[in-house]
Amino acid sequence: MTNEDRGLNLDLDRRRRLGMVEAVWGADKTVDQIVAAARRLCAAGETLLVTRVDEAKARAVLQQLPALRYHPQAQCITMGKGMTGGPWQCLALLTGGSSDLPVAAEASVALACHGVEAELIADVGVAGLHRLMARLDHLARFPVLIVCAGMEGSLPTVVAGLLPQPVIAVPVSVGYGVGAGGHAACMGMLASCAPGLCVVNIDNGYGAAMAALRILRTLPIENTEGQASQAPG
Amino acid sequence: MTNEDRGLNLDLDRRRRLGMVEAVWGADKTVDQIVAAARRLCAAGETLLVTRVDEAKARAVLQQLPALRYHPQAQCITMGKGMTGGPWQCLALLTGGSSDLPVAAEASVALACHGVEAELIADVGVAGLHRLMARLDHLARFPVLIVCAGMEGSLPTVVAGLLPQPVIAVPVSVGYGVGAGGHAACMGMLASCAPGLCVVNIDNGYGAAMAALRILRTLPIENTEGQASQAPG
Amino acid sequence: MTNEDRGLNLDLDRRRRLGMVEAVWGADKTVDQIVAAARRLCAAGETLLVTRVDEAKARAVLQQLPALRYHPQAQCITMGKGMTGGPWQCLALLTGGSSDLPVAAEASVALACHGVEAELIADVGVAGLHRLMARLDHLARFPVLIVCAGMEGSLPTVVAGLLPQPVIAVPVSVGYGVGAGGHAACMGMLASCAPGLCVVNIDNGYGAAMAALRILRTLPIENTEGQASQAPG
Amino acid sequence: MTNEDRGLNLDLDRRRRLGMVEAVWGADKTVDQIVAAARRLCAAGETLLVTRVDEAKARAVLQQLPALRYHPQAQCITMGKGMTGGPWQCLALLTGGSSDLPVAAEASVALACHGVEAELIADVGVAGLHRLMARLDHLARFPVLIVCAGMEGSLPTVVAGLLPQPVIAVPVSVGYGVGAGGHAACMGMLASCAPGLCVVNIDNGYGAAMAALRILRTLPIENTEGQASQAPG
Amino acid sequence: MTNEDRGLNLDLDRRRRLGMVEAVWGADKTVDQIVAAARRLCAAGETLLVTRVDEAKARAVLQQLPALRYHPQAQCITMGKGMTGGPWQCLALLTGGSSDLPVAAEASVALACHGVEAELIADVGVAGLHRLMARLDHLARFPVLIVCAGMEGSLPTVVAGLLPQPVIAVPVSVGYGVGAGGHAACMGMLASCAPGLCVVNIDNGYGAAMAALRILRTLPIENTEGQASQAPG
Amino acid sequence: MTNEDRGLNLDLDRRRRLGMVEAVWGADKTVDQIVAAARRLCAAGETLLVTRVDEAKARAVLQQLPALRYHPQAQCITMGKGMTGGPWQCLALLTGGSSDLPVAAEASVALACHGVEAELIADVGVAGLHRLMARLDHLARFPVLIVCAGMEGSLPTVVAGLLPQPVIAVPVSVGYGVGAGGHAACMGMLASCAPGLCVVNIDNGYGAAMAALRILRTLPIENTEGQASQAPG
Amino acid sequence: MTNEDRGLNLDLDRRRRLGMVEAVWGADKTVDQIVAAARRLCAAGETLLVTRVDEAKARAVLQQLPALRYHPQAQCITMGKGMTGGPWQCLALLTGGSSDLPVAAEASVALACHGVEAELIADVGVAGLHRLMARLDHLARFPVLIVCAGMEGSLPTVVAGLLPQPVIAVPVSVGYGVGAGGHAACMGMLASCAPGLCVVNIDNGYGAAMAALRILRTLPIENTEGQASQAPG
Amino acid sequence: MTNEDRGLNLDLDRRRRLGMVEAVWGADKTVDQIVAAARRLCAAGETLLVTRVDEAKARAVLQQLPALRYHPQAQCITMGKGMTGGPWQCLALLTGGSSDLPVAAEASVALACHGVEAELIADVGVAGLHRLMARLDHLARFPVLIVCAGMEGSLPTVVAGLLPQPVIAVPVSVGYGVGAGGHAACMGMLASCAPGLCVVNIDNGYGAAMAALRILRTLPIENTEGQASQAPG
Repeated sequence: MTNEDRGLNLDLDRRRRLGMVEAVWGADKTVDQIVAAARRLCAAGETLLVTRVDEAKARAVLQQLPALRYHPQAQCITMGKGMTGGPWQCLALLTGGSSDLPVAAEASVALACHGVEAELIADVGVAGLHRLMARLDHLARFPVLIVCAGMEGSLPTVVAGLLPQPVIAVPVSVGYGVGAGGHAACMGMLASCAPGLCVVNIDNGYGAAMAALRILRTLPIENTEGQASQAPG
Repeated sequence: MTNEDRGLNLDLDRRRRLGMVEAVWGADKTVDQIVAAARRLCAAGETLLVTRVDEAKARAVLQQLPALRYHPQAQCITMGKGMTGGPWQCLALLTGGSSDLPVAAEASVALACHGVEAELIADVGVAGLHRLMARLDHLARFPVLIVCAGMEGSLPTVVAGLLPQPVIAVPVSVGYGVGAGGHAACMGMLASCAPGLCVVNIDNGYGAAMAALRILRTLPIENTEGQASQAPG
Repeated sequence: MTNEDRGLNLDLDRRRRLGMVEAVWGADKTVDQIVAAARRLCAAGETLLVTRVDEAKARAVLQQLPALRYHPQAQCITMGKGMTGGPWQCLALLTGGSSDLPVAAEASVALACHGVEAELIADVGVAGLHRLMARLDHLARFPVLIVCAGMEGSLPTVVAGLLPQPVIAVPVSVGYGVGAGGHAACMGMLASCAPGLCVVNIDNGYGAAMAALRILRTLPIENTEGQASQAPG
Repeated sequence: MTNEDRGLNLDLDRRRRLGMVEAVWGADKTVDQIVAAARRLCAAGETLLVTRVDEAKARAVLQQLPALRYHPQAQCITMGKGMTGGPWQCLALLTGGSSDLPVAAEASVALACHGVEAELIADVGVAGLHRLMARLDHLARFPVLIVCAGMEGSLPTVVAGLLPQPVIAVPVSVGYGVGAGGHAACMGMLASCAPGLCVVNIDNGYGAAMAALRILRTLPIENTEGQASQAPG
Repeated sequence: MTNEDRGLNLDLDRRRRLGMVEAVWGADKTVDQIVAAARRLCAAGETLLVTRVDEAKARAVLQQLPALRYHPQAQCITMGKGMTGGPWQCLALLTGGSSDLPVAAEASVALACHGVEAELIADVGVAGLHRLMARLDHLARFPVLIVCAGMEGSLPTVVAGLLPQPVIAVPVSVGYGVGAGGHAACMGMLASCAPGLCVVNIDNGYGAAMAALRILRTLPIENTEGQASQAPG
Repeated sequence: MTNEDRGLNLDLDRRRRLGMVEAVWGADKTVDQIVAAARRLCAAGETLLVTRVDEAKARAVLQQLPALRYHPQAQCITMGKGMTGGPWQCLALLTGGSSDLPVAAEASVALACHGVEAELIADVGVAGLHRLMARLDHLARFPVLIVCAGMEGSLPTVVAGLLPQPVIAVPVSVGYGVGAGGHAACMGMLASCAPGLCVVNIDNGYGAAMAALRILRTLPIENTEGQASQAPG
Repeated sequence: MTNEDRGLNLDLDRRRRLGMVEAVWGADKTVDQIVAAARRLCAAGETLLVTRVDEAKARAVLQQLPALRYHPQAQCITMGKGMTGGPWQCLALLTGGSSDLPVAAEASVALACHGVEAELIADVGVAGLHRLMARLDHLARFPVLIVCAGMEGSLPTVVAGLLPQPVIAVPVSVGYGVGAGGHAACMGMLASCAPGLCVVNIDNGYGAAMAALRILRTLPIENTEGQASQAPG
Repeated sequence: MTNEDRGLNLDLDRRRRLGMVEAVWGADKTVDQIVAAARRLCAAGETLLVTRVDEAKARAVLQQLPALRYHPQAQCITMGKGMTGGPWQCLALLTGGSSDLPVAAEASVALACHGVEAELIADVGVAGLHRLMARLDHLARFPVLIVCAGMEGSLPTVVAGLLPQPVIAVPVSVGYGVGAGGHAACMGMLASCAPGLCVVNIDNGYGAAMAALRILRTLPIENTEGQASQAPG
């Protein structure tokens, strides 16, 4: 066994422990590392999610393993059928602008790997507040809301002030100047005056999906999409 | 109506909209502002939670309104019986060290205002990992985990890597040097390699409680404390 | 002439050049420096505004110069009748919470020194959005809006997305953790997705007032408050 | 309707609400997204402004929609004749150095879309103060001044100390070391000792233009370029 | 010899090596440490400068050593007659506002310890530029200029753009919000567009004095105060 | 068992696992928490080290437990005889200035609790480099060097460039302006060009001591100071 | 001798002084500078380590000096046989994920140049804690542990809480958002609650290796991996 | 006259006012802007210095104006013979490592434009302190020292502690991790414990040269290179 092999020590126990498929952070991995991970997980009968894979790297990976599937907007590679045992409810995935779509897509792919559907409600940022207000009744039907926003990142605060469900805020690295890198959005979401807003790392669509999954797993299975199992008292 | 009166425009609709009692951020309010808020909410038949009230200010408030109750460790004032409609489940409230207790206490008081009980599991930080490992089976029974930690803030990451429930991480402003103000803990929790960790602002025990409440509200009411309604598949 | 005297070199030309009364930043001045400034300006027939004077320092100043007036909430000292030549219009002064009142009060006193009235509309933060929505028609009548907010500072963004007037955003140092010192609010206001939002320094009520004054000065005098317009006395 | 379509939810109401044409942040949009936005706005009889479009992306967009116009220095795409209802006055657009010209050009294009002309007065930075002093009388005739500066960003402070009009400061990301990214300029403009200076985000020429537009809209229409309607008292 | 004694290891060689008297940073020293340092230097026939000593600590030190002298505005203690070998020229010490005087005073006392006189020209900040312009001819006569400024710190940039001498910029911790602690001033001075501006640490009046001393030492001794020995070509 | 009791969950296993006495971070603990910790450890036959205890709190603790010992310069409380099994070698503890002594004292007390002696070599900062150069031969005899420095923190870099032993750098929060809080020193030590310099948190004298202890434990115990020896089991 | 030559002033004395081979920071050097350094060291009979050399630059260097060896994962060039006098013990080199391998490889190559072998134990991050726990007995046998981790960087804290040896923590620039550049990991390692953790700069595999070498040099040389041994002269 | 022309408003008065040639910051200028500036200055009989011009841009400029000269290491373009009126003394230009050479070269070219020669003493960083100590006597002969250093930037502190002349510190953006961008070096130089160290912006070789020129201009002309005109008393 070479040092190169030792570099990959996949957490094959994750599905049993956390109920999640093994996910690989692709940004700092070589094509060879990703291919090796896919082969090992495949051999173990596992599914796979690789995030942050740009198009060139994905092409090189799929050349060796054509059975994998690449999702270009989400920059993700998936393998296998994902987890079953669901379906749980559908959740809502909001974005402030269309520039936030890649992050929302990463969340959507990650949820799909676990048998959860996400309804995308994009471009409802607070600069044109009527777009959100017109959808409040529709939004009230989802058990969990993931809200992605860049720039100053006000959208999750406004949503969490209007609706009682769990709201997972995802700061997005869309912005410039003091808003560059999503840091203003991230700070604003953490400092939010809305009670009970939860935040994940900038651009962390995958993390928001897994946080939502942890919540959905606590809910009873139901038949109808978008009906909250338990309304606030 | 004077300018002074206009300064207080309480959100009496919050209970209906979000299922939460009105909460007042006490740190930047005068004794008169807090007393006025309490009187108005009392007149409206509402309950009240005031956070971040130091002992001197609390004494001055209670001198005028002896029916209020002060919680010294949590630095909170409460009024009335809190919300009914529960009880929902008990959740677990972990801290890395005993210095994190004030933040945990704020969360605990805020949950109690909404009829939710929190079991405190303190001083289980990763510097002595056996303290956490010995409690894993016990922790597995709670539907939601709130984890408070200062310094480098590793505890929520370790917990979220071992257990499948929703984990709400609270960075605590215990530390010095590069860890001063809880910023290292906050950054570490956001940057966590554990999938699906949610973060609230530094020292935001109240926010963590409300985030947990949003989750618990989606669950079916049950009888036994500490039994998850729905295990991961 | 001693060095101590040289330390004070007041800009007696400011009224002619900018149409503003001399304003003194009181936070880093001694009682003696403030008294000397007041005496010199009084001798020159000028009015005076001293900002950031805490109660103890103000008492010591007024003991020597009882004709001055102290505004405790605004932490300002004023002298004389302010500028005439007006009246211009009234503007609206919004705050997200009652903790923002001291900053709004500083703006209000500074405007009053220049013959401008400010209508305070406090505690309309986005966590309870209905409070703002109910006042939109009223707000539409003012030529300029000053909006003060702490925490994540979303309010100016939401206001500027709904209304077409000049909006001057004032971040307020109300907050904790990542929101401490008003920095998250300041970054969020600068990074705002609302078009044409202007920002002044954190807690800079005086600056917001002078920015509003610069705008109001360009307007024709009018008769009715809040219409393309003529200001009150 | 696909998810891809949902990604674009243009604010067609903006012109009615704020008197501004829909503006699209082009930096994080694909060619397809920009083309789709242009088509939809065109169909709605709207005009369009797309900012932050580099030359390659602009070429790809114009290949599909040759009626659009690209402004290379401003990195903007415009469509249609812009808003009418004017002309309001001309305003002055100052820059500290010739490196600030792209930001000034973005402001200029955005103003032109709304029927406002901007007179460019470039390269008058404080390192050669005589260049500014020689133009003071000329500058005094404009109702609003937009001042762009990088490095330490002193120019808006000096201008606002000399002239009574509204001054909108635009920090520019020209600089290196501690001045990299325009952060030193931005902090300096916010911390300015000049009373009533307003600041927008770094490089935000579009925002400065919209802030100026909000002010100009409050002014009566007049015939002569550059004559302030109302002098300070 | 105890550990306590070892804690003080004064640089008695500094005068020979650098031509400067031993200076002690008083802020983090106890009364006993300062007294011990003074005694040892006195025994060695040296002079002494202690900076950053607040009034209470100074009183306690002088009670034990009444021959020392306290300078309250400069917060310095001095001992002995200072260095001889001069006098070199007088230099000019400018401040933007009267709040900068304590920093200027520290520089002034430090220079006096080395036989150099400083002419204070206070309160000539750029918000009222005429105050500086009226003194340009006078300033042109000094061989070195020390310029102290807080807030946005533009003054040294403007001075260095107008005058050819060495300019030492001292950022001052006067300010609030983004200008708090003097950081905006410091960044602005470093990022300055004026060629050849030198910067010392925030509030470092002592350091500016020593930098000036290093320059003055390279000049030929002369008789008349304020006449540059060598004009630019 | 009350919540208050649960707050303290001491790591009684630390001595067996790491060979270190239980250390309590005293800064955020109440007098009651410290007393309870001391009682429990005493009952378990353990020793105790409490760091960051100011004089007032220490007095209150010792009033209840007079057998404890307070070290005022180090701000530490100790109990019992410390660990035996030593003595190992003496190590050298350098400081740049006498202001760094409290941090060095914390390291010294922590080492003494584990039977290790530290020789203090204070005030050898690089501003007077001859003080260090004169001690190089002496320093060469110690197996480990702990080097404390504030301001720009150059001393550990210079030491590690001259001597081959393990060097543990401790940034000290002595400084002001950009050096405030020890951050400049900390960054400088991490960015050091000297090969193999190790850094602990700002002011972390205890951490440096424990890092040194981990190294010394690997060495053979010896009899004479500064010569190789032999470690315990 | 030209200026170009003067640019290179190698520290040929380093081996004698510190027992380390000359190491050249390759990132900011040209091909010519690296070649010149290699030639001069070769002439002096020295060995050489060049770090941070990307593949293209390395190819250009090796074209001129084919006797050099390039290590692609470590991005290092080595020359000669390295130092002899060993072998000392093998140490353990842990990584949190496979993305940390390049940093670990730099450490490994640097140690190999000094005759020290490093056993790589990769991908044992805390998100799957069982991977570490299963190796504790094996890890206990190494005299020094180097632990590389990105993201939140918890691994060194957990390791140092479980094992008594010297632990050198290396933050790795693997991460995004608030974890970008390794800053969250670096802050977390410095702020660690584990006693005696030492930290080097982000990605500083070379520095960690040299810190380990300083420690290993104090040990007696031995034959069997992981047992106390004896150091060289 | 078009807007494009207005973009260039050269400070033709600079030579008269400050005794410096016009310098153009080339990094954010187009080839056309640089060519236009050169033509205008040439027509005015002026010389020119353009800094921060990469090789490709320089080639394009020189194709149009072959009389200009490009300095590749310094990344500067010069035109004409530079200023006469000298020669003043030679000064010393030190660098910590060979990676700092481009910054030193920028300073060297800028000085040469003003008739001042700089003697380069490169690669004398504190990691190998003997290289500096061996040159102290030689360094003592220069009237001004410019010291460039990256990483932790200790070199200027050590130099200013050993030698009495004016020392201008230039932080260099050589480093990584916490030292990336030269920020650690910059903070360390400002926070320096050495008395009277002056600092310019990161990588600001030009600024250091102009600061030195301001000092040299105050000195009497002399004949021999490297002899200080006036020793400290």
